[in-house]
Amino acid sequence: MIYLDHAAATPMDPKVLVAMQPYFSDDFFNPSAPYAPAIVVRRAYETAKDVLGHAIGGKGDEIVMTAGATESINLAFYSIGGHIVTGNIEHHAVLETAKQFEHTIVLADVRGMVSADSVKAAIRSDTRLVSIALANNEVGTIQPIRDIAEVVRKEREVRLSRGDLTPIYLHSDASQGVGQLDVNVARLGVDLLTLNAAKVYGPKQVGLLWSAPHVELKPQVVGGGQERGIRSGTENVAGAIGFAKALELASEHRRYESDRLAKLRDSLESKLVEAFPQAVLSGHRKHRLAGHLHISFPKLDAERVLFALESRGVLVATGSACAANKGTRSHVLTAIGLAPDVADGSLRLTLGHLSNEDNTLKAAALIIEEIRREYDRMSA
Amino acid sequence: MIYLDHAAATPMDPKVLVAMQPYFSDDFFNPSAPYAPAIVVRRAYETAKDVLGHAIGGKGDEIVMTAGATESINLAFYSIGGHIVTGNIEHHAVLETAKQFEHTIVLADVRGMVSADSVKAAIRSDTRLVSIALANNEVGTIQPIRDIAEVVRKEREVRLSRGDLTPIYLHSDASQGVGQLDVNVARLGVDLLTLNAAKVYGPKQVGLLWSAPHVELKPQVVGGGQERGIRSGTENVAGAIGFAKALELASEHRRYESDRLAKLRDSLESKLVEAFPQAVLSGHRKHRLAGHLHISFPKLDAERVLFALESRGVLVATGSACAANKGTRSHVLTAIGLAPDVADGSLRLTLGHLSNEDNTLKAAALIIEEIRREYDRMSA
Repeated sequence: MIYLDHAAATPMDPKVLVAMQPYFSDDFFNPSAPYAPAIVVRRAYETAKDVLGHAIGGKGDEIVMTAGATESINLAFYSIGGHIVTGNIEHHAVLETAKQFEHTIVLADVRGMVSADSVKAAIRSDTRLVSIALANNEVGTIQPIRDIAEVVRKEREVRLSRGDLTPIYLHSDASQGVGQLDVNVARLGVDLLTLNAAKVYGPKQVGLLWSAPHVELKPQVVGGGQERGIRSGTENVAGAIGFAKALELASEHRRYESDRLAKLRDSLESKLVEAFPQAVLSGHRKHRLAGHLHISFPKLDAERVLFALESRGVLVATGSACAANKGTRSHVLTAIGLAPDVADGSLRLTLGHLSNEDNTLKAAALIIEEIRREYDRMSA
Repeated sequence: MIYLDHAAATPMDPKVLVAMQPYFSDDFFNPSAPYAPAIVVRRAYETAKDVLGHAIGGKGDEIVMTAGATESINLAFYSIGGHIVTGNIEHHAVLETAKQFEHTIVLADVRGMVSADSVKAAIRSDTRLVSIALANNEVGTIQPIRDIAEVVRKEREVRLSRGDLTPIYLHSDASQGVGQLDVNVARLGVDLLTLNAAKVYGPKQVGLLWSAPHVELKPQVVGGGQERGIRSGTENVAGAIGFAKALELASEHRRYESDRLAKLRDSLESKLVEAFPQAVLSGHRKHRLAGHLHISFPKLDAERVLFALESRGVLVATGSACAANKGTRSHVLTAIGLAPDVADGSLRLTLGHLSNEDNTLKAAALIIEEIRREYDRMSA
């Protein structure tokens, strides 16, 4: 099997499981219990949060652990509320949450990029939150978060200068970029950041919301008062520890891994483009995730190709794998202006830990073969 | 180490980990992806939900998976809203959530029991939800859920007979009882039921909300549309499978295990009461969880005893281990009318898988020794 869908799910790193293992059946204590073995568990949990904080240039006590990116995004929006500015190529988790509030949708350009200027134009006097993902999960475009942060910072200054205390914050879902990009909250200039362990070879349904000390969060789930009262429920100790290990490994290998993946991706891309000059590449040429290749074969039925490739042992995506995308054309591809007959012939090929030179070359050959067969069938 | 705090946390059963293991690094696929290996994962996930549904007399598609009991309770309350009736000895997860709505608090009696009559008296014409836990997590009292369900059913009939379509539902958090009691949604007569894997030797932060087909849930966390659109986020496949295995094992061994625990508990209880005739037992004498012993030693400082016992290798609780309970007197003990100097001398001893005759007898001896030492110190 050759797996080219790392953006949809990643296998848990064996080292992550090793780190989690003691907390399943041995150090299983409730971290809120008062006796020493439970305090040891609580410390391990808090250390994991410190490691997570450190990995993004923040602190452990600025983090609220959640059951994944979706809950984290919902918590950020629910906490800040007000008028929200977001982009038309955002993940459903952001778009559906934004719909619960007054919001303005900023349009990405054909490369899938959201400009700081367009965000600036969309900000109203009552805008409280801007939310733009660090990297798009379908076409891989990396957004100019620092420039957008600058826009938000200036708006904040303007408001203060006229005595307007309405806060405005920048949230970014960095789930998709964290293994390949430098995700540092200070350098990015964000006020809130979402991460997901499942995208970085950690456990599923483990995520976090980081927020700067000046941001006040409001609990969406109440109860026992865990996570500083922001998110109740007995802590997922093993999950946090697995996430910390996964993020630590990702940070450690980030430069090497993103170089490696970019090279593999470029070789895959050039082979496919060479074989099919009519192919359309989407996403920004330069500011794009290293392992990400979004390519469309006009007039082709990408679903047929996906299943043909599956029968040859190659797993690819036609779009995002979330439940909302079943049987519909990707809102991202429509947003960046792909014609329907181009969008419908799209493959998303995302490389990662399971990719190497050998299986990437093999995949290229098999993809070319199956697409050629499909074009031949259509012209027959 | 002798662990007598099974109500706070349970070690994951090794069989549960074995069941989960394949889904960490091998069958790691996103259940929403279209290729066969992902469909296999989706089927395994849905089968796990079927098993969970079956175990409580419901169906898999009536279940929404959550990140534990707290989220499940929040989702139930958020979905139904309106005026809520609940009890004064409920867990913080219920009480704090109820505070977000108009609500009436029903008083438990001295045995920690909430009568169906008191629930009946509290129901108003705009009451939409009654929420009473199946068993109390501190004193172990099992509530007359069937009788309460009958009250709710009659209220529904009365409303219908006068053309009033305001729905009224019964929710029960059965997290604490599920390993020892027959938890069958039809026999209990509930409309919504909360369960927690972490209380039944399954993984932490895995829970479920079961709801009858006539109940309409409202998503609190939106996004990719997983869990029939009720609770978005990529599914915790390993978690659901672990929970299913844990509940399966619990159902299989329930009768044997609850008999075994009741015998151990009774022997522990009689030894302690024999040694300290002034001890006060809380919780219903008959309708009480098998592994549950709540005992108070008047005028004693239970925290001192807890730490003394810890140094002898015996782990006990003074109350519930949730973060909200830090440094405060248990609201449950106050509610059932324990005088402060009795409440403050309370130990909650909860038996479970790690308990056996040998270590329960040893624990009894050590507890007696340490309490005697403490009483001696006080009278010196």
